[in-house]
Amino acid sequence: MRKNYLLTPGPTPLPPEVCLAMARPIVHHRTPQFQVILKEATEGLKYVFQTKNDVYTLASSGTGAMEAAVVNLLSPGDTVLVIQGGKFGERWTEICKSYCINAEVIDVEWGKAVDPSEIQKRLKANPKIKAVFTTLCETSTGVVNDIEAIGKVVKDTEAVLVVDAISGLGAIDLKTDAWFCDIVVSGSQKGLMLPPGLGFISLSPKAEKLSESSKCPKYYFSLKAAKKAWAQTDTPFTPAITLIVALSEALKMVKEDGLEKIFLRHKKMADATRAAVKALGLELFAPSASSDVVTAVKVPAGIDGEKLVKTMRDTYGVTIAGGQAELRGRVIRVAHMGYIEEFDVIIGISCLEKVLKQMGHKFELGAGVKAAEEMFARKA
Amino acid sequence: MRKNYLLTPGPTPLPPEVCLAMARPIVHHRTPQFQVILKEATEGLKYVFQTKNDVYTLASSGTGAMEAAVVNLLSPGDTVLVIQGGKFGERWTEICKSYCINAEVIDVEWGKAVDPSEIQKRLKANPKIKAVFTTLCETSTGVVNDIEAIGKVVKDTEAVLVVDAISGLGAIDLKTDAWFCDIVVSGSQKGLMLPPGLGFISLSPKAEKLSESSKCPKYYFSLKAAKKAWAQTDTPFTPAITLIVALSEALKMVKEDGLEKIFLRHKKMADATRAAVKALGLELFAPSASSDVVTAVKVPAGIDGEKLVKTMRDTYGVTIAGGQAELRGRVIRVAHMGYIEEFDVIIGISCLEKVLKQMGHKFELGAGVKAAEEMFARKA
Repeated sequence: MRKNYLLTPGPTPLPPEVCLAMARPIVHHRTPQFQVILKEATEGLKYVFQTKNDVYTLASSGTGAMEAAVVNLLSPGDTVLVIQGGKFGERWTEICKSYCINAEVIDVEWGKAVDPSEIQKRLKANPKIKAVFTTLCETSTGVVNDIEAIGKVVKDTEAVLVVDAISGLGAIDLKTDAWFCDIVVSGSQKGLMLPPGLGFISLSPKAEKLSESSKCPKYYFSLKAAKKAWAQTDTPFTPAITLIVALSEALKMVKEDGLEKIFLRHKKMADATRAAVKALGLELFAPSASSDVVTAVKVPAGIDGEKLVKTMRDTYGVTIAGGQAELRGRVIRVAHMGYIEEFDVIIGISCLEKVLKQMGHKFELGAGVKAAEEMFARKA
Repeated sequence: MRKNYLLTPGPTPLPPEVCLAMARPIVHHRTPQFQVILKEATEGLKYVFQTKNDVYTLASSGTGAMEAAVVNLLSPGDTVLVIQGGKFGERWTEICKSYCINAEVIDVEWGKAVDPSEIQKRLKANPKIKAVFTTLCETSTGVVNDIEAIGKVVKDTEAVLVVDAISGLGAIDLKTDAWFCDIVVSGSQKGLMLPPGLGFISLSPKAEKLSESSKCPKYYFSLKAAKKAWAQTDTPFTPAITLIVALSEALKMVKEDGLEKIFLRHKKMADATRAAVKALGLELFAPSASSDVVTAVKVPAGIDGEKLVKTMRDTYGVTIAGGQAELRGRVIRVAHMGYIEEFDVIIGISCLEKVLKQMGHKFELGAGVKAAEEMFARKA
């Protein structure tokens, strides 16, 4: 007997209700029956995005929705500003380059959030910048950017603000409309408690206006086609029916709890995790900008970070994430997104203690769990 | 109480084993556990594609895989030959146009298969043609094209042969390697007994060679990225995990039955359906090239085709498809793909009889089912 626990920043664990929704007999997508589901799902997404604008659901991973943002807004030769600071910020640059778009880059040190005044400076220096690409929560470092402040900086310029909220949406606050986010993209396998396979994208009127002059080639990711179809509660191509059925189920659960309560829950899980790892003598990777979405923790000197993750997963069934790219072996990442509650955190910390102890790290067994429990007690 | 039956050409019904596989707790995609599943699925796809080449699985609908074929092979300004003859043949032209590729078109009459010698003529007339885009089974008309004959025509030219096998793969024979198909694309929601949300694409060495000079922009659909990832039993972006788990389950069932037996089953279902509709005094839409994948039947004079489909579905729970584009209201389409057996055909015909009778079409009640039963008895 071995139970498996998932504490990774995508995919995240699925509620049994969502799992079982996917086991239902499939329905055809061009039927009144499916139209009801698509409509419910779209309304639910608008609630989570905190927007009055349309939100389109694509059959793709989150990266597909990122590509949709680029190819629908821009034309080859355009100049944009990309906020990097981790693997997923860099992805914006890669996509732009693939479409011959000049990406000016603000290269934030990994583990730090971007300074919004830096964006302001760059926009002033180059009024040709058509879009600012940023990341709500950089999954590779756990850093959260101050999108509200960035929105204030971008809103009075010609540029549109594009936010990768793949990690973070439905876990921490993101007020698409109130914070002047012109495009928000997200994915299903994070805060929304679904399997991967759906990408989401919302457009403000400002973004729609820019998209009218876009000359990047596109077909599958054309949002003009999506808009036309959605107006008839339809999709331009066969949608990922099963995942949309699950989406509508998951969004019902989100609505029932309410976003505010959900954000507080994520904060509680993150605070407890942070307290626990500190009690084990570990250091946060991003102490100044650690998100409530995923916590990156430095692997202590003398400990093999990859082996730590592998042992927790393959020997004890608890899957957390290691570091990506330049952080490989140097950090571990514990997610708080979606269907995660108090006792999931306890399990994660308990297993971390077990394996750290085996690997020779010095601390008092139980210290991490104690700190987490104390945090939960304080926040009850 | 009302049971629902699906006889549409995508999505198709799901085996309970496949439904339940999707209800399992999700696994992380960067784990040895998922690698086993991805490997099994890829091997299974190679069996169904009848190819030794790699087959990549994309998180997209079939149209995404079609776009992947275009953008990985070609460059803006290239000339290609597209075989049209229905809605999905036309999609090749639309995608090519979106990427500034000149599409020469063979406009086959809807309901007819393409004459391979016409392709030969066009390739001789324009040696600049870099690719021939065709369709195994045109879902909108039920027509099957002779891919084997087309392969013989294309193989000795510079052009690569691209086959849209979204409808048809796993239902009727398609020997990717033996018939010289350079790219075959497919989707999950047809013969493979899965929900929509996965696209598949295979490349021959000839296609890979052409792809090296391709200048179309691409990122999410880059097959160079897919190839690099697959070499490490990985995917370039987060895969649609749940659907791939279901894919590996469905492909086990396919392998157990064996392709030959499966193709015979599809032929039996199609033959019985054709016999039944004829016995009801109806006419096939494509008598000369009707596939064993989906049968299109002309709506008889005086009968409202859209109402027929709607009544069967909304009153009696039996979903068949109506006509698309120029065939709207003029044909009905009954699918034989995937998880469909004898008694599904009987149900479909029985319901068709019921509603046709109510709508005033003249025939002897039971005549269709009788003809189907006779066909099954003959083929038992």
